[in-house]
Amino acid sequence: MKKVKVAQFGLGPIGLESLRLAAAQPWMEIVGAADNDPAKAGRPLAEMTGLGSLDGLSVAPSLEEIFRDTQPDVILHTATSRARATLEQMRPALEVGVSVATTCEELVFPRLRVPDLFEEYHALCRHTGARLVATGVNPGFVMDLLPIGLTGVCRAVDHIRVERVVNATTRRRPLQAKIGSGQEAAAFRAKLQSGAAGHAGLRESLALVAHAMAWTLDEIREQSEPVVADRKLATEFFTVAAGQVCGVHQRVVGSVGPVEKISLELRMYLEALAPHDTIVISGRPGLHVTIAGGVAGDDATVASLINVVPRLLAAAPGLRLLTELAVPSFVGPAA
Amino acid sequence: MKKVKVAQFGLGPIGLESLRLAAAQPWMEIVGAADNDPAKAGRPLAEMTGLGSLDGLSVAPSLEEIFRDTQPDVILHTATSRARATLEQMRPALEVGVSVATTCEELVFPRLRVPDLFEEYHALCRHTGARLVATGVNPGFVMDLLPIGLTGVCRAVDHIRVERVVNATTRRRPLQAKIGSGQEAAAFRAKLQSGAAGHAGLRESLALVAHAMAWTLDEIREQSEPVVADRKLATEFFTVAAGQVCGVHQRVVGSVGPVEKISLELRMYLEALAPHDTIVISGRPGLHVTIAGGVAGDDATVASLINVVPRLLAAAPGLRLLTELAVPSFVGPAA
Repeated sequence: MKKVKVAQFGLGPIGLESLRLAAAQPWMEIVGAADNDPAKAGRPLAEMTGLGSLDGLSVAPSLEEIFRDTQPDVILHTATSRARATLEQMRPALEVGVSVATTCEELVFPRLRVPDLFEEYHALCRHTGARLVATGVNPGFVMDLLPIGLTGVCRAVDHIRVERVVNATTRRRPLQAKIGSGQEAAAFRAKLQSGAAGHAGLRESLALVAHAMAWTLDEIREQSEPVVADRKLATEFFTVAAGQVCGVHQRVVGSVGPVEKISLELRMYLEALAPHDTIVISGRPGLHVTIAGGVAGDDATVASLINVVPRLLAAAPGLRLLTELAVPSFVGPAA
Repeated sequence: MKKVKVAQFGLGPIGLESLRLAAAQPWMEIVGAADNDPAKAGRPLAEMTGLGSLDGLSVAPSLEEIFRDTQPDVILHTATSRARATLEQMRPALEVGVSVATTCEELVFPRLRVPDLFEEYHALCRHTGARLVATGVNPGFVMDLLPIGLTGVCRAVDHIRVERVVNATTRRRPLQAKIGSGQEAAAFRAKLQSGAAGHAGLRESLALVAHAMAWTLDEIREQSEPVVADRKLATEFFTVAAGQVCGVHQRVVGSVGPVEKISLELRMYLEALAPHDTIVISGRPGLHVTIAGGVAGDDATVASLINVVPRLLAAAPGLRLLTELAVPSFVGPAA
C-alpha cells in the first residue's frame, strides 16, 4: 500500500509528539519538518524526537524548503491557535494542493472569526485540490463533534449542554500555567476577560454545534472567571496560596431569541474532584452521556490529528469542518 | 431548496413511524409507500398514519408501482432484518439509481453474512449511482458507530467493550415478546441458541468494529441465555411466573489469536435496574463512557433512519458502511 507522505509544521511539545506518533504509523512516511523558530532550523529530527528512524532529516526553516526536496501528501500543523496565522503559514502547501490537518483551535469553525479568509482559502483549496481541517479534543471532539454525533439518533433536539471538568493537578506544566495557577485573582481575571489568558475554542465549538443543528444564534454570551484556591495547594510545578488562582471557569451560551439552545461549560482547576465530560441532549430521545475522568491529555490531541488524516484525504477539496468528514476512528496499523 | 423525494417500504409500526417523521421534515417530500403484504395494498396513507398531509397517496403493492408514477431520491426500508431479503426487495430501486436507507440489521455489515451479495450489489450500485446504508440504534450506533467514533481520540486501542442493559418493562409489547417474556426457559433457550429468537445484529456490530480497527478476528464466540424471573413479574402486556423467562442475555466476543479484542453484551429483561449503555475503550487514552438510561426506543431508530439520508445522498455510490458516511447528526428543519 502506498504510504501517506507527512511533514510536521511546529515542533513544540505537541508537534514533537505528533511527529513521534506519525513516525510510528506503518501507513505514514515522514518526509520533513519545519518550524518558524530560526533557532530550531537545521536541528536533526532524530535528536529532537529520540527516534533513530528519522535519521537524516532536519528542521527546515519553511514549508517551501521542504517542498524543494519532496511533496508531502499532508502537513500536520501544531503551531498556533490563531486562524489567520495558521492559514498564512499553510498557504505554500494549500497553493500546491497539499492538504493540512491542524490543531488550530480557531479553524474548527473558521467562519466564526475569519469569514473573509474562509472564503478566500476555501476557494483556493477547491482550485488546487487541497483540504484543510482542524481537529483536537476541545475544540474538536468533547464539546462539538461528539455531542453532534449523538444527535444522530434524535428526532428532535431542543438544547445541548456540555460540562467538562478537568483536574489540572494531573496535567502538564503548560496547562497549569495557562489556567493561572498561583496568579493573583484580579490580574488574572482581567487577562481572562480580555482573551489574553484562558482556554481557546469554546466559541468555535458553540458555532460548530449551532451550524450542525441549523440554529442561527441571536446571542452568544461568554463568561470567564478564575477559580480561587480556598486553601494552600501544591503541584509538581506550582504552589498556590489560599486566595490565589488555581484554575478557570469558562462558559459560553448561545440563544435563539430568548431561548438558550447551547451551553458549554469548562472548569479546569487544581484538585478538581471527579473530572468528567458530560453531554446532555434535551430532545427526543434525550441523552445523558458521561465520560468518567474525561477525555484527557495530549495523547488524545495528537491521536485526533493522526487519525483524521485518512478521512481528510478522502474528503472533497476545501476548508472542511469535522462534521463533513467520515466518522472518526482510530486508524489501525493496516490502514 | 430542492426537497428530497422519499418513499417508504414496509408499513409495520416502525415503518409507519418512519413515514410520519419523514412527513414532518420540511426538506422531505413523501412520494409513495409500499408493503409486501397484499392486504395493505391500496390503503390510504393518510388513514394509516393519521396525517392529512398524505392525502391522495395509498399503499403500492411494489416499488415498481411507485416508480411508474415518480422516481424518489431515496427509499426508507423497514421491512426485514435479513440482508438477502432486503437486497432483493430493494433491487428495483438500486437498479435505477435510487438510494436506500434501511434498518435491516444484517446490512450494517453485509460482508459478514452475504459476502457474495455484497460484491454483486456493491457493483450494481456503483454502476447505477445508487447508495445503500443500514442504520439504527443497535446495531448501527450504541455498540458500533459510537465506540468507533470514540476511538478517534485514541493513539492505541487494545480492547473495546460495550454493555447495554435495557429495562424491558418500559418498552413496547413486541420487544417484551421478543425477549421471551413468560415463556418456559428450556424451550426459549433452544430458540435463542438456534437464532429463532433474540436480538439480531450483535455479530454485525462486532464485525463493523473489527473492520474499523483493522482487526482480523480469528474467533467469534456468541452466547445467548434466557434471563429467568426469580419472582412473579407483571407488565402492561405480560405476566411472568417465577422460573419463567423475563428476558435475554446475549454476548458476542471477538478474539485475535488468544487475545480478546471486542466484547459486546446485551441484557434486555423485565425490571432491569439502572438501564444504561456503557462503552469502555482500553487504550491510550482509555475511555469510559456511559449513557445513563441508554439510547432507548423506536424514536431513536426512526431518527437514525431519517437523519442518515443527507449523509447517504452525499456518499459515493455503493453499499456503504456507516463509518464511510459523514459524522451522524440531527438534521434540522433548514437542511
